[in-house]
Amino acid sequence: MAANNILYAQSGGVTPVINATAASVIETARVHSDRIGNVFAAADGIIGALEERLIDTGSLGEDDLRALAQTPGGVFGSCRYKLKSMEENRREYQRLIEVLDAHGIGTFFYNGGNDSADTANKVAKMAAELGYPLNAIGVPKTIDNDLAVTDNCPGFGSVAKYVAVSIMEASLDVMSMASSSTKVFIMEVMGRHAGWIAAAGGLARREEHDPPQIILFPEVPFDRQKFLAAVDESVKRHGYCSIVVSEGARYADGTFLADAGTTDAFGHKQLGGVAPVVAELVKTELGHKYHWAVSDYLQRSARHIASRTDVEQARAVGRVAVELALEGNTGVMPVIERVSDEPYEWKIATARLEDIANHEKKMPGDYVTDDGFGITPAARRYLEPLIRGEDYPDYDARGLPRYLRPRLELLEPKLPGFEPA
Amino acid sequence: MAANNILYAQSGGVTPVINATAASVIETARVHSDRIGNVFAAADGIIGALEERLIDTGSLGEDDLRALAQTPGGVFGSCRYKLKSMEENRREYQRLIEVLDAHGIGTFFYNGGNDSADTANKVAKMAAELGYPLNAIGVPKTIDNDLAVTDNCPGFGSVAKYVAVSIMEASLDVMSMASSSTKVFIMEVMGRHAGWIAAAGGLARREEHDPPQIILFPEVPFDRQKFLAAVDESVKRHGYCSIVVSEGARYADGTFLADAGTTDAFGHKQLGGVAPVVAELVKTELGHKYHWAVSDYLQRSARHIASRTDVEQARAVGRVAVELALEGNTGVMPVIERVSDEPYEWKIATARLEDIANHEKKMPGDYVTDDGFGITPAARRYLEPLIRGEDYPDYDARGLPRYLRPRLELLEPKLPGFEPA
Repeated sequence: MAANNILYAQSGGVTPVINATAASVIETARVHSDRIGNVFAAADGIIGALEERLIDTGSLGEDDLRALAQTPGGVFGSCRYKLKSMEENRREYQRLIEVLDAHGIGTFFYNGGNDSADTANKVAKMAAELGYPLNAIGVPKTIDNDLAVTDNCPGFGSVAKYVAVSIMEASLDVMSMASSSTKVFIMEVMGRHAGWIAAAGGLARREEHDPPQIILFPEVPFDRQKFLAAVDESVKRHGYCSIVVSEGARYADGTFLADAGTTDAFGHKQLGGVAPVVAELVKTELGHKYHWAVSDYLQRSARHIASRTDVEQARAVGRVAVELALEGNTGVMPVIERVSDEPYEWKIATARLEDIANHEKKMPGDYVTDDGFGITPAARRYLEPLIRGEDYPDYDARGLPRYLRPRLELLEPKLPGFEPA
Repeated sequence: MAANNILYAQSGGVTPVINATAASVIETARVHSDRIGNVFAAADGIIGALEERLIDTGSLGEDDLRALAQTPGGVFGSCRYKLKSMEENRREYQRLIEVLDAHGIGTFFYNGGNDSADTANKVAKMAAELGYPLNAIGVPKTIDNDLAVTDNCPGFGSVAKYVAVSIMEASLDVMSMASSSTKVFIMEVMGRHAGWIAAAGGLARREEHDPPQIILFPEVPFDRQKFLAAVDESVKRHGYCSIVVSEGARYADGTFLADAGTTDAFGHKQLGGVAPVVAELVKTELGHKYHWAVSDYLQRSARHIASRTDVEQARAVGRVAVELALEGNTGVMPVIERVSDEPYEWKIATARLEDIANHEKKMPGDYVTDDGFGITPAARRYLEPLIRGEDYPDYDARGLPRYLRPRLELLEPKLPGFEPA
């Protein structure tokens, strides 16, 4: 191991359990205080690292860490900012190494998804090139569940649980109302390119007559007539129809059903509002009364209904990340390996960042039923263990969760200012 | 007390805890089995009562009742159907009495809001007019919290807790992202005519710098310029802006910001989709990146985050309703009376249905801050006790709540068919 301080940074969209990983990194580092100095966190992710806006987590006491571990969002701030290739923007990689050097940092943890694995990998390479001793380690996180190599991604299991529980609850509501009022309920969930989150809604449907009757996946081209026929059949048969629709639902030509028309810093389209589009279609073509919900950030911040499995895995990757650093690894990521489905067993393995960076794990084709509207037993076998167990946050006497809202002081900068590209 | 069977019916929009009331009615009736016969439930509310579609709850075992008490939605089915005045539709009131008579029913519980209190009151009058011995008793329920006389309505506290927790969580998310991405988050909540539910979002804001920074109430005419200035100020000051908007938010001339253009059976406009309207405004006028959520049915079915206070009150009104019947009361409703704010103490009192029917309790003007965007200490004092305590449902080993999905058999009809108007 190199210089003995750690820099921890969060990247991209946050999750209900990314702070559990952060707390685990800090706690594990403290266990090894003989070999590890301070754990610094970058304010607002990699941007803060480049700008030398660093937070000393040493001010967090035990109660703070307990609260941190159960707080949704990214408490140190995250960012959507992708470093360009080393050829295009060598100066940012060099600057990062300068910041690390100025603060005695020998370990860099980048807690994120595909793009972040790529960045961490490039940072590892640049450090080697410059002869700076560094353990650059990726730590997995993403609600999209689309990271390669790892069996699943911390963050996904809790979102999956939220979606399964929520569609189960809202379906019980529409069932109650259907005789004289609302007959169709539509819940929009995240998942730009893959139907992992939408598929989780299918966990609520254990018996053939259970809701949701229809899931609209990004992977299955939207067929208007087939969809309307399925809604109609469900209303005739069950009296109502409950639908989960992915924000990434699209027509055969690739056009999204709803497209807000804006793009994020990575050039991804920002989507939203497919539920009202589907609702309008149902109303116009079938005349049924409908209700629709868009869960958006609610789904990915719902720490109050986190999956215990997910929380345990989020903590485990944080702990092992520190252990990998102590062993002198670089260019790696702790990943979740499934040992068995039933009983569900898993362990943490180590993957090389270059095997993860910029790959996208697609949902297997055999997870979707032949009619395109449901999940198969194979999908259920994979998904179900991930939502198992509850891990409630502590609540205060006034009825709200004890979430951490620290006033985090920034370290004095040691370098001249820097403007990221 | 008259004939010794009970008929229980649910009415209008369901709540996360209306089934807790139902379970309490059934359990209390069983305690008094020396004086009470069967508890029948009307399938799909008053429509099922008129059509003689009745369910014998005697088939529900102890485990079923435990599951029933923690299941959202209305397990027997509800309806949006308002009986006309006795002058306009005497035949429906007479039919109801015939159904009661045919099944030896001496007690009618109507579990609903304003309209239902009115119906229960008319049923009481009609029974008296026809000389049919009946205890017609209203049982309060409505997430809108707009019933007169009662301090608060069972169902509201759990929705309030969901809204306060959810906006707290989603705000932590947007705070994390604001440096380089989303700066404005908008959450739409229910509350057609009154801002009770929107006000609950304000419970998350305990310190001046806490979110949500802006609440848009139906009671405060929407002022576009003032709103945009407030968003802009919050983004400048805090780096982000978190907003709760009521579906009933409207302009000074009464026009709703969003109006789906459809009406329900009571002639109320069906609203939805104000969040995207507000988001569009923020984007067009201020250029900030936004996210928005519409919680819709999710908020009123979220039994997984129910308020313990609310569950206790939902059960208490069910229990006292049975006791009121045993004492021979008619034309009354058990209501919640607040004894003190701090420590919070409450008891069940008895109100006359004619004092409740068709009145609408408005949110006091002094609950909204002078700027129109927040809640006052008076509002907080009233609201906070209602979200206190957690009351989690049981979960099964596969990670989902144990909600009741009974196959409820209908009783053999004893009368000729009947077509409600």
